[in-house]
Formats: sequence, structure tokens, C-alpha cells
Amino acid sequence: MAKKAPKQDKSSAPVALSTKDRKTLSSLRELAGSVVQYAERSRPPHFEVPSRSLSNVKYNQTRRIIEMGSGANRRELFNLGQAKSFMQTVLVGSKCKGLIEQGKTASIRQIFYLCKHTIKGTSENTFDEQEECDPIIEDVEVMLNTLREELHVFASNRGTMVGNITINDSGDTIDCSRMGSGGYSIPSIVEPDVIEFRECDAKFILHVEKDTVWRRFNEDKFWKEHNCILTHGGGQPPRGVRRLLSRLHNELKLPVYCLLDNDPWGYYIYSVLKQGSINLAYESARMAIPEARYLGLRSKDFQECELPDSVQIKLNEQDIKRAKQIAGYPWFEKKKTWQKEIEQMLKNGFKLEVESLISKDISYVTEEYVPQRLEDKDFLD
Amino acid sequence: MAKKAPKQDKSSAPVALSTKDRKTLSSLRELAGSVVQYAERSRPPHFEVPSRSLSNVKYNQTRRIIEMGSGANRRELFNLGQAKSFMQTVLVGSKCKGLIEQGKTASIRQIFYLCKHTIKGTSENTFDEQEECDPIIEDVEVMLNTLREELHVFASNRGTMVGNITINDSGDTIDCSRMGSGGYSIPSIVEPDVIEFRECDAKFILHVEKDTVWRRFNEDKFWKEHNCILTHGGGQPPRGVRRLLSRLHNELKLPVYCLLDNDPWGYYIYSVLKQGSINLAYESARMAIPEARYLGLRSKDFQECELPDSVQIKLNEQDIKRAKQIAGYPWFEKKKTWQKEIEQMLKNGFKLEVESLISKDISYVTEEYVPQRLEDKDFLD
Repeated sequence: MAKKAPKQDKSSAPVALSTKDRKTLSSLRELAGSVVQYAERSRPPHFEVPSRSLSNVKYNQTRRIIEMGSGANRRELFNLGQAKSFMQTVLVGSKCKGLIEQGKTASIRQIFYLCKHTIKGTSENTFDEQEECDPIIEDVEVMLNTLREELHVFASNRGTMVGNITINDSGDTIDCSRMGSGGYSIPSIVEPDVIEFRECDAKFILHVEKDTVWRRFNEDKFWKEHNCILTHGGGQPPRGVRRLLSRLHNELKLPVYCLLDNDPWGYYIYSVLKQGSINLAYESARMAIPEARYLGLRSKDFQECELPDSVQIKLNEQDIKRAKQIAGYPWFEKKKTWQKEIEQMLKNGFKLEVESLISKDISYVTEEYVPQRLEDKDFLD
Repeated sequence: MAKKAPKQDKSSAPVALSTKDRKTLSSLRELAGSVVQYAERSRPPHFEVPSRSLSNVKYNQTRRIIEMGSGANRRELFNLGQAKSFMQTVLVGSKCKGLIEQGKTASIRQIFYLCKHTIKGTSENTFDEQEECDPIIEDVEVMLNTLREELHVFASNRGTMVGNITINDSGDTIDCSRMGSGGYSIPSIVEPDVIEFRECDAKFILHVEKDTVWRRFNEDKFWKEHNCILTHGGGQPPRGVRRLLSRLHNELKLPVYCLLDNDPWGYYIYSVLKQGSINLAYESARMAIPEARYLGLRSKDFQECELPDSVQIKLNEQDIKRAKQIAGYPWFEKKKTWQKEIEQMLKNGFKLEVESLISKDISYVTEEYVPQRLEDKDFLD
């Protein structure tokens, strides 16, 4: 290899930066500037890193999202226990700066490889494992009050969209009503400088848990008949899907209905979509959808839909423990409907998958269940 | 629920069947017909189920794919040990027949729910667990010499495509060169009655292992500069991706180049793409691509690309065991290049991920590595 000279012209070509990119760059420069300033004043350089520990996470009753508190930890260069993570923070920041300037993006794995090297004259690596690097990326996010995606770092993508909306993705116009059986693959970075919403006739969003259920709805052209957008997130939706749903909800005022399994995992997915996650509390404001509605499956459905015994899946100990935990979440704790829902599942002693509705008819879920629930406004909030 | 009368008109509307659907239906009817015939002649009904055991799998040197042998097992109704699986086979067959007639598709999970019920007057279920149902679906596939997808059964979808090709998916025209950063989500069923190839300017296919690497290539518009199609399969590619690659290769005569990690898992992914998998040997003829080429990463790359020590990932015992196993596969065993490749990895004592090339430059893989290898025709066969 290395026969071909590196295409210098390409990498040094000036990149058009978006307003958001310029803002993120300026935050990064400010951060680095503070280190220089401290050094010039002969004072020990340090950062204030907002604490991401559980004790610094709280539920904001008014905004109805999980938020970070004001707790922060100091990270100092001249502190033996903190010098390495100080260096790592600067390193990750500088690589993100480089990505933004080049107009490129990288996965967290790629950031790790970009940062990992043996420090000259030592046998010490900047990073040894990916696990060391991931929390540093999160530190930089919270320090700058920015989303990972704004630092040009992306997560794995998973999730698909179809429906009555036309978007522009990186200059290409994509009509999501003409995406065949496959659909538009939702990318990890869906910020306004990448994805712009153009025309949208859809009146709401139906978000389903799994791709297999999504396929049933797409095949039955549910979104056409009911004029909506249909998405899935391959289980717990990844950041890109959450952010896109949040943007569609906030910018286009589309209500979001969630069709998830009647089990603790389904409740948890709803909880994250609605209030944000405890681990990534600092992102809630830009990803959570407090108005999201839980359409089903519900604990009452076994009886109400007259399902056969054979579709019951017995709750195991882990399920019972998780269900009780979720019932104690502050945003579910004061809601009688949710307390009743979870209590009923525990009383049932079994869980139900969305797929179990197929025992009625292959298209029962698309032709009966969801339309009826929407008509009756029968969902949990 | 159940307030709304089932939309009988919808489900009973005649569905336009494709030629392939009619063929599959006729195979299913023939199978059922044989049971009836045996019964009418007062002879015990039975099926011949081609054996999917390892001993019935062999490598066809001429066709260069893994194939099933001619071994078969008899499955009898009047045999206490086989009566249940006989019933299950008929049940799965009849549900597939229903799907085809309705023009609908179902996941293997949905097939399980369609089939599972308590047998009247007993406490016995037709199926208790998904694990019982999956092999029966495979039995029906091999008995009818049909693909699962032709039975209207789909697997999870995973994998994305962009590039200089326009396809028709279920009546929608999809220009894969205008799919933004997200891409076209490759569905699970890609048979000709669903996906038709329209215009194709692309001269080859670059298949990469992971979505994160795919994103790098898409962002750098590699497929535009090199006039190709770019796909990934999210690790081990699912059936839909394998089948689509095979169709693109065979029908449009496009060479397939694979960019995978330099580790036993990467070798294995290549092996499955090229020769088929041992578990699903009966599908090789329609999914394997014996002409697929392994572009990299190669064991020589650490030296040749002058990578830093920090990107090495030490081989563990499991890796070493797997590497030796793979070196013994009959299709690798006689190839000196592959023996050398695997030997070199074992000698290196480490593996390399595609992402490690980023330590040279963020776009080294798209601007140097792959173009140079293609130009030099430097790949393994």
C-alpha cells in the first residue's frame, strides 16, 4: 500500500460549516481556551464535568422529563488520579473538532481508534479499551451541553420509516410514501442540517417496537389508509430514532402513539421514549416526548380481545421485579392508570407480545386493534 | 374491542398471485394431496423430509457451494414418536398456504403464533416454544425445495443499500443514488415479484460488514466516485441481504467485493456469503456467491499499511480455535492463499478491525485502501 500519495487536496478542501457546527466548534474552542488561560495564569487547568451519577438525576414534574441536576465534578490536570482522564477529555474534544472541521462523522468505535495511541517515549496507551472512551465522549457532551450527534459522533443505526412525509436527507429528496417494502433506513444523525422536513400530510406517528410488526403495518398500507408515519426502532429505539420522533413531534406537531409488547420491556421502552433514560438524562430535553401515548398492548387485552390461552407467556421472577421497579418510577407512580395497568399484568401472571394478536387474524392488529383504539382514544398517557 | 365487525370484504378479496406464488401453492397442495392419497388407500400417511444434519451436507467442488446430500428421513403419522411433528408439519404448511392466498407475509415468530393453539378436548398445545416451530418451517422449505421467502415467511431485516441502481420495490421506484445519509433498508423478502431491478449503472458491489463502516463510505460518496453499489449486513448478513447480493451478482453480472474484519468472524462471514452456510445448506444454490472476493482486511495489512501497535487486538483462545476450524473448511483447505492468510493471522497473534484503518486518516479506507486494492486486483478468492 501507500503507493498512492494521500489526496491532500481532498482533506484540506474547505468544508461549508452549518450554523450548528460553528456553534459546537466555538464551544469546543472555548473549552480548550479555558485550559490555556489557566496555564497562562499559572493556575492548575481543570474542567467542571457535570455529574452523570444517579444521585444527580431527577424527574422534572413540570417539564415531565428526566433531567440532570446541577452536581458537577472537577477534573484536574495536576491530580494523579485525574490526569489521565483530563488528557483523554482533551483528546476526544480535539478529535471531535477535527471531524466537524472536515465535515465528517465517526462512530464511537471509530473515535476510540482515532484517539488510541501509545504515548511517545512510554508504553502507556491513551486508551486501552472502548469502555474507557465511551464515558469520556459522554463527558464532553454534557460539558458542552451538546448532543453527541452535534459532535459528529454517531451511534449504530437501526429503525425504519415510511409514511406520508417527504424529507430532505443530505440534499436528496426522499418521499417516504414511495419506499416499497423496505422503507427508509433512519440514520443515526438526524439533526436539522442533515434531515429537513419538507411536505407532511401525515396526522400522527405510529411507532411500533419491532421490524416484524412494522412489516405487517407497511404491507397492509396502514399509513396510507390512516394518513400517518410508521416507524420502528428494532426494540429499544436507538438515539437517531428517538431524536427523529422528537423532532417530528415538536416541529410538525404530530402526536406519537406507541405499540409495544405488554411486558416490562415494552413499558420501559415507552418510559424512555416519553421521559428519557436515566443513563442519558442530559439528552432528555432533546429526545424525550412527554406527550407520547401508550396505545398497547395492555394488560386488559387478553380478555378484551378474547385471545386464546396459548398466547400467554408466563412472567418470570425477573419480569416481576422489573415491573415493580417500573411501577415505582416517579412518572408512573402517581398515575392511577399506569398503576392499574402494571398491577393487572402482575395479577394476570403473564405477558403478551404484539404478535399474539395474530391468533385472531393475520391483520387483526392493523385492521381492528389499532384503528379501534385510536377511534376510542383508548390509550395510556 | 370487537365492536367493529371484521372487514370480511378485505380478507376475502381475491389476491393476484404471481407465477412463483402459484408454483409454491401447487407444491403445498401436492404435499397435502399425498397425505390424502395415502389415507384413501388405507396406507399410513408419511413425508420424506430431506435430512439437514451435518452428515448430509457436502461441499460441491464443481459448483463451489455447500449442498445437501440425498439423505432423507421418513416422518409418519402412525408413529408415536413422529405423530406430533407430522401434525406440526401439516399445520405450518397450511398456514403458509393461507399467507400466500391472502398475499400476506409473516415472521417466524408470527408463524409460531398462527400455529400455536391448544388442541380441542386436550391440554396439549400444537407448539409450546418457538424453538419447536423454527425447524418445522425449515423442514417445509426443504421438502418443497423452496425458499422460506417463497412461503411468505420473512426473517428480521437488517442491512442497507445505496448506489447507482434503481429498483422497483412493490410498485415504488427507488433510486438508490438519492437516498441521503440513511439509505434504502433492504427488506427480508427480495424475490423478483417484490424487487425488480430497473436501471443499473454500477459496475460492482462493495459489501462491508458493519453499518458504521458503511456510513463512512456513504458519507465520502465512494459509490458515486467508483460507480458501485454499497451494502452492509449488520455483521453476519441476514437472508434478505444475501439473497439480494446473489441476485444482483447473477442477474446483473456485478462482481461482489467484501470488506470485513481481519478475524475469524470476518472470515466466516465471507465463507457464508461465498459458499453458503452449513446450517442452511439447502439454500446455498440461491444465496451463495462462489465468485465473491475477499478484499480485506488481510493479515498482511498491519505491516503493509504501517498501522500503529495500538490497533492490535490480541487473539483469544476461542479465536485461535475458530481460525483453525475455518482453515480446515474444504473450500479454504486447498487454497494456498487462504492457508497463508489464516496462518499469518495466527502468527501475528492479533486481529484487526476495518475501523483500525482510521488511525491513518478518517477516510483512508475509502480514499486509499479500497481503491488501491481494487486497482491492484489485490484480493483473495
